[in-house]
Amino acid sequence: MKTFSITRPDEAIRKRLLDKIDNLTKPKGSLGRLEELAVQIGLIQQTDRPSLRRPHNILFAADHGIAKEGVSPSPQSVTRQQTENFIRGGGGINFLCRQHGFTLKVVDAGVDGDFPPELGIVDKKVRRATRNFLWEAAMTEEERDACIQGGAEVVKEVYDRGCNIVSFGEMGIGNTSASSLWMSCFTGLRPESCIGSGAGLDSHGLAHKRQVLKQALERYDGDASTLDVMRYFGGLEMVMAVGAILEAAELRMIILIDGFILTNCLLAAVRLYPQAAAYAVFAHESGEAGHQLLLKHLKASPLLHLGLRLGEGTGSLCAFPIVDSAVRMMNEMESFARAEVTKYF
Amino acid sequence: MKTFSITRPDEAIRKRLLDKIDNLTKPKGSLGRLEELAVQIGLIQQTDRPSLRRPHNILFAADHGIAKEGVSPSPQSVTRQQTENFIRGGGGINFLCRQHGFTLKVVDAGVDGDFPPELGIVDKKVRRATRNFLWEAAMTEEERDACIQGGAEVVKEVYDRGCNIVSFGEMGIGNTSASSLWMSCFTGLRPESCIGSGAGLDSHGLAHKRQVLKQALERYDGDASTLDVMRYFGGLEMVMAVGAILEAAELRMIILIDGFILTNCLLAAVRLYPQAAAYAVFAHESGEAGHQLLLKHLKASPLLHLGLRLGEGTGSLCAFPIVDSAVRMMNEMESFARAEVTKYF
Repeated sequence: MKTFSITRPDEAIRKRLLDKIDNLTKPKGSLGRLEELAVQIGLIQQTDRPSLRRPHNILFAADHGIAKEGVSPSPQSVTRQQTENFIRGGGGINFLCRQHGFTLKVVDAGVDGDFPPELGIVDKKVRRATRNFLWEAAMTEEERDACIQGGAEVVKEVYDRGCNIVSFGEMGIGNTSASSLWMSCFTGLRPESCIGSGAGLDSHGLAHKRQVLKQALERYDGDASTLDVMRYFGGLEMVMAVGAILEAAELRMIILIDGFILTNCLLAAVRLYPQAAAYAVFAHESGEAGHQLLLKHLKASPLLHLGLRLGEGTGSLCAFPIVDSAVRMMNEMESFARAEVTKYF
Repeated sequence: MKTFSITRPDEAIRKRLLDKIDNLTKPKGSLGRLEELAVQIGLIQQTDRPSLRRPHNILFAADHGIAKEGVSPSPQSVTRQQTENFIRGGGGINFLCRQHGFTLKVVDAGVDGDFPPELGIVDKKVRRATRNFLWEAAMTEEERDACIQGGAEVVKEVYDRGCNIVSFGEMGIGNTSASSLWMSCFTGLRPESCIGSGAGLDSHGLAHKRQVLKQALERYDGDASTLDVMRYFGGLEMVMAVGAILEAAELRMIILIDGFILTNCLLAAVRLYPQAAAYAVFAHESGEAGHQLLLKHLKASPLLHLGLRLGEGTGSLCAFPIVDSAVRMMNEMESFARAEVTKYF
């Protein structure tokens, strides 16, 4: 497997960041989360004049063999249809990308279908959908490593074009199932606590999903390592996102994390490389059951609670202006001394 | 006193709004708060193709006689200094206005000092600071009515320039004291629950503030009506904000509400005209003690919880992109039928 060289930001600059923030024309601490973000970004970029350049949302799409077991109310074909819809600009993520100046990259990690090359979907297809993990491993070790490699390549490419802040999205009917099993294996929480209704199961459907996933977990006979859990339960888009997160951390990019699935990908990434956590900004707590528990496990306190449960990176995009505000605070706000304002409390 | 003609939005359009939202290419309800906002804005503007035009942040500044009693750790002169800092562009609100395309109007409602006319501060000065409400009413009935009139005039002017969404800010050393007493009188909650540390009192200072404010409340001998409480405890910038909110509701503008002080102004406004509530978008829950209780009293669920306690309208500006996203969702997102995507859940 590709390895990554990830280091924690040098802490030496923290005092300078705090001093600067405390001398801006406002009562100390009165810009709340913006001040915390400014410190995190200052550490990541090692400067008290941070900047955000060419933000990208990278959306990984793939199909899941487990979808055959009826764990989602939506037909598998929706993955392919929505992937094309994103390229045409009609999805939820599209208006948010336009609003916030993000470039959208749609990556085919393993959709069960072909796309005409002229659509501009980035082709990193490792296979057409994962295998059905109720009966066998979702992918081989080679396929898993190809996913990690592919995710890293996509990030390196946007970095080389000048991007220093990235968010990730996913599309894949069945991927809350795969994510729930990652979560259960990684946190030790009972599967019941990790399995929710996804994009809209009713209580009957949820009971069926729980039963299928518990059975899959009982049959799992791997070594329970992070890499083996990733391989066994998939999905291709999720493993690719893990590779992308690790590459972004190696390149010291700001990583916006939103949603149940991507938060599981982040958890996998920090289990492999704990230093990667310093680069993650938790954007949004979704409406999916289990996400709250997962964030608690990560000691994460997301910026937004908007009840979104669409995926695609939508929550990260909604949080972007807050990150931008933190950066502008550092660059544009006056100090007490320069503004000739008595320092107040 | 000036009267206002405020009507609730016509509910007939609600079904059309909900139908449109449910047919966008996403699982039903999966855009959470964006969907709720889209309904509210659709009702206010009576259209399923809403728009946001020429947003303004109107910041009312004034001084408070009660500041003489040492209820704030900051000297009163900070009100004048910061008002000038806002005009020069170095305040917290300034970088947010630039970021989100807001025009900032700074209004002198009663600062204890003079501004050179060339600064461009809108002169609505009713008097130089309120009287000290520990000993007498902060203002006369005529002064109160002049504030309401002044606030309404400022809003009418920005409306006439094409603005349909407005947020309000305030600057006034001592105004968390005045606000706490409004809150106690309006909600019936004990003063202790309504009085917090404002812009940064320590526990000794907070105890003193509580003692002064309880004494003022005990000495108050008015009729406890909304208008009398507004007059007795002031401040000038707060009463002016009430007039501004009522005018904005009459003109069917979207009103962004943030912060402890402005939320009290909104509460006063809806006590006078309950119909005004339909036009308010609660942007942010601040770090000021009491704000949470106040929002609960109003059954309000703010969009953001960023721990800001700066005032100036900063929380409203941070929430603006979310309002913008709700509007873009209605105008830019595809329906299932047009995108040829199977309706999924």
